Formats: sequence, structure tokens, C-alpha cells
Amino acid sequence: MAVIKLDKISTRAPKGLRKEKIKAETQKILEQLDELQNLLYAESKHSVLVVIQGMDASGKDGLIRNVLGQMNPQGVMVQSFKVPTAEELSHDFLWRIHKHTPAKGMIQVLNRSHYEDILVTRVHKLIDDTIANERIKAINDFEEMLVKHNNTTILKFYLHVSPEEQQQRLKERITDKTKEWKYNENDFKEANQWKEYMKVYHDAFTHCNKIKWHIIPSDQNWYKEYMAATLLYEALKELDMHYPQIKNNL
Amino acid sequence: MAVIKLDKISTRAPKGLRKEKIKAETQKILEQLDELQNLLYAESKHSVLVVIQGMDASGKDGLIRNVLGQMNPQGVMVQSFKVPTAEELSHDFLWRIHKHTPAKGMIQVLNRSHYEDILVTRVHKLIDDTIANERIKAINDFEEMLVKHNNTTILKFYLHVSPEEQQQRLKERITDKTKEWKYNENDFKEANQWKEYMKVYHDAFTHCNKIKWHIIPSDQNWYKEYMAATLLYEALKELDMHYPQIKNNL
Repeated sequence: MAVIKLDKISTRAPKGLRKEKIKAETQKILEQLDELQNLLYAESKHSVLVVIQGMDASGKDGLIRNVLGQMNPQGVMVQSFKVPTAEELSHDFLWRIHKHTPAKGMIQVLNRSHYEDILVTRVHKLIDDTIANERIKAINDFEEMLVKHNNTTILKFYLHVSPEEQQQRLKERITDKTKEWKYNENDFKEANQWKEYMKVYHDAFTHCNKIKWHIIPSDQNWYKEYMAATLLYEALKELDMHYPQIKNNL
Repeated sequence: MAVIKLDKISTRAPKGLRKEKIKAETQKILEQLDELQNLLYAESKHSVLVVIQGMDASGKDGLIRNVLGQMNPQGVMVQSFKVPTAEELSHDFLWRIHKHTPAKGMIQVLNRSHYEDILVTRVHKLIDDTIANERIKAINDFEEMLVKHNNTTILKFYLHVSPEEQQQRLKERITDKTKEWKYNENDFKEANQWKEYMKVYHDAFTHCNKIKWHIIPSDQNWYKEYMAATLLYEALKELDMHYPQIKNNL
């Protein structure tokens, strides 16, 4: 598996792509996704876990609204993970995640995930490398278990924005009244730790790589949405699903 | 680690033990257990998971009532696992178990457990050896994760009764009005598969042995209760717990 180096991967769409054309293409994929999700739900043999990670303002919420939220909500669940509650902290770090793994037939979206337990916690030095490495093993075991024991397809998305784009978006949280609710006084402080975040993200990509990480260029929302929709479409298409039929000899 | 061979282990108390003396001893241990459990709860650094397995009528319910149920119920939770529901079956087999793992400070008792997924399911040929082996790996990873990531002490008890004692007890379910509610028409059918059960139990003991199995002679309830109380007492005693103190420099 190739080593992921974020600074070698563009945060923008490949040159020559036309925004309007790609947006139309995304719409077509979303229609097909809607059908495939219905088939997944009808067959109820597989489950899909979409893990969404990325820096602040990398566009996680928008991706959920514009791509994953376009399918039937009866078959798609979204769970957002914030700072752990006291109850969650009194359990192992996977306890709150396992509750929200998808049932067969379902797509479960995680807005942030168990990866925060080896990301923000490392940047803030809440855990040392020994614990981080034990968590990495536990994450790998956990993901393997979901794949083997609940036919789960796991898609891991990293929304890849440049620090400049992030700064731009964080500033909009102050100047745009419809975005102000997202503002948090720690946003800029966290952004200042960009390098530390990149370091632990790379560590996660390298050591939790049994299931592939998809690095999605996310400076332009239209391209991010196109990429994520395409990746989900391809993953569902690979499952070789069939609508259950009433037996012929009925 | 020594291989466990149930047919080499007595189902009865060692000769020479006097029932009344042991019962008095158990009472003393229970008093000390009550204190240790209070300390566990107060300190809230460790958690304890007691897995109780055994054949039908091996005395699991009685053990819970007379030993684990003697401690403060605020700090001791009991979860009984029956045939999985449709919702549980739509998830991986550890999903319903992980929900009931103990928070720090708590003792969680499992009346039957994730082990059923490699026991009754194998006897009834609901899964093949390949799946069983994958589940064994998942169980080992899961238990290791609980130990490492939530300071969990796991006690695995097998209540060891002889087939003769089991038959006796099953018959009482028909003749004793206070036990009739436990009667299930499949009891005797399951009992007939004794050898098959022993085979898969031995497989579980051999391959899920990173955390020790305690084989508790259980033909006599007084000895079973004494043994279980002692094992729990010793495990809690080993934790080196201390009541949190208000800082000296207050």
C-alpha cells in the first residue's frame, strides 16, 4: 500500500475539470446511489460504515447534507462524535462507537469517529505514544471485526483542505451570519496546531491502513462531493447485491 | 497455561470440607467483598467483568442471587443473554455485549455471554469451524481491548456440574412448583447433546485462554458460591485500590 503524504496531494480538483459539468455528473451519481442504497436496504446482507475525518472547516457537515443526506433517511444514519461525555469516558474508547455501527442493510455515517482518539487526544497530549499504539491496534482489530462479522464495508474519508482554505472558512464563521453558529473560540487555536495534526493524521494513515483511506481534495465543495459520491457508488456497486425474490416454486 | 480437561476435574467439593464451615466462611468473604466493591466504586479506576457460563441448571442464577447480588446494586449490574433478537442479529455478535461492558467503578455480570456465539451456535451447527475460528479471534481481541482500554478485570467462570446432577436438577423443574417456571421443553433435548457441548467448551477454553477460565465445581451450591466469592475477592484484592482523598494542601 502506497504511503500517504498529504503535502504531495492537491487539495483542489484536477485542472481542466469544469465545475458545472462535474455538478451535473454528481447529480447523476446521486440518483444511482439512491437506487443502490435501496437495494442494500432491501437485501439486508451488507452494511456500510462511512467514516468522515478532516480538520475543522474541511466540509464534513456539507458532505453529509449534500451527498449522504440525499438518500432515504430510513436507511442512512448519521452520528456525530463530540468531546466524550463523562459516561463515555468511563468506558473504553470504542464503546460509544460500537453502538453506532451499522445494522445489515444500513449505511452509518460517522462525523468524526474513533480516529479522534488518536488525533485530537495526541495533539493535546492527553495520551502518550504507548497508549496511542495500543489504540491503533484496537482500532485495527475493531475494523477487522466489523468487516468479518457484520459484512461491513468501511469507507474512510479524509477531507483534504489547505490551511489557507481553512483560514478563509474560519473567518467566514465570523463574518457570515448563517455560519456564525459554527464559530468556536478555540477554532483558531486549533488551526495553529496544523503541523501537529498533520503528524498524527499521517500516523493514523500509516498504521490504520488495513482498510484504505481515501484522501478527498476538499478546497472546492463541488469536487469533494463528486469524489465522495463516486467512491460510495463504486463501493456499493462492488457488493453484487440482488433484490430478494419470492421463491419460484411459490 | 495448563490444558483444561473437564473430565479430570471434580464437580464436587474436595473431600473433608464441612458444608456449614464453608458457608460461614463464604459469609465472611461476602462482607469483605461488599467493602471491596464499595472501594472499586469510590475509586472508579478499574472495572470488573464477570462472565458466567455453564450448562443448563448448572446454577448460574443462584450464583448471581447469592454472591454477586449480595453487593450494592448501584455498583453491580447483571445482564442475561438469551437467543439474539432480530435487531441483535443484524449486528456483529459482539455489538450486544459491548453495550453491557462495565464502566469504571462498576462490576458487570454476564449471565451467558459472547461465548454462546461459539457454543450453542456450534452445537446446533448454525456456524461452521471457519466462522467459529474467526469469532474466537474476535473474542480474544475484544477481551484484550477491554483489559487495555478500560482497566477491566475479566473473570471467566465455568460452572462445572456432572451430567447426573444436571438431570436431577432438570427433573426438579417438573416436580418442584417453585422451579417449574424454569422448565423449557428443550431442556432434555439440549442435555442429550452433552458431549457436543463439552467438545465446544473445551475448544473455547483452549483458544480463548489469554484470560484464564476458572472451572468451579458446582454440584454443591455451597461450594460453588464459596469458590466464586473467593475468586472475586482475590481479583479485587489484587487491584491495589485506594479511597480518593481530598488533597492535603486544601
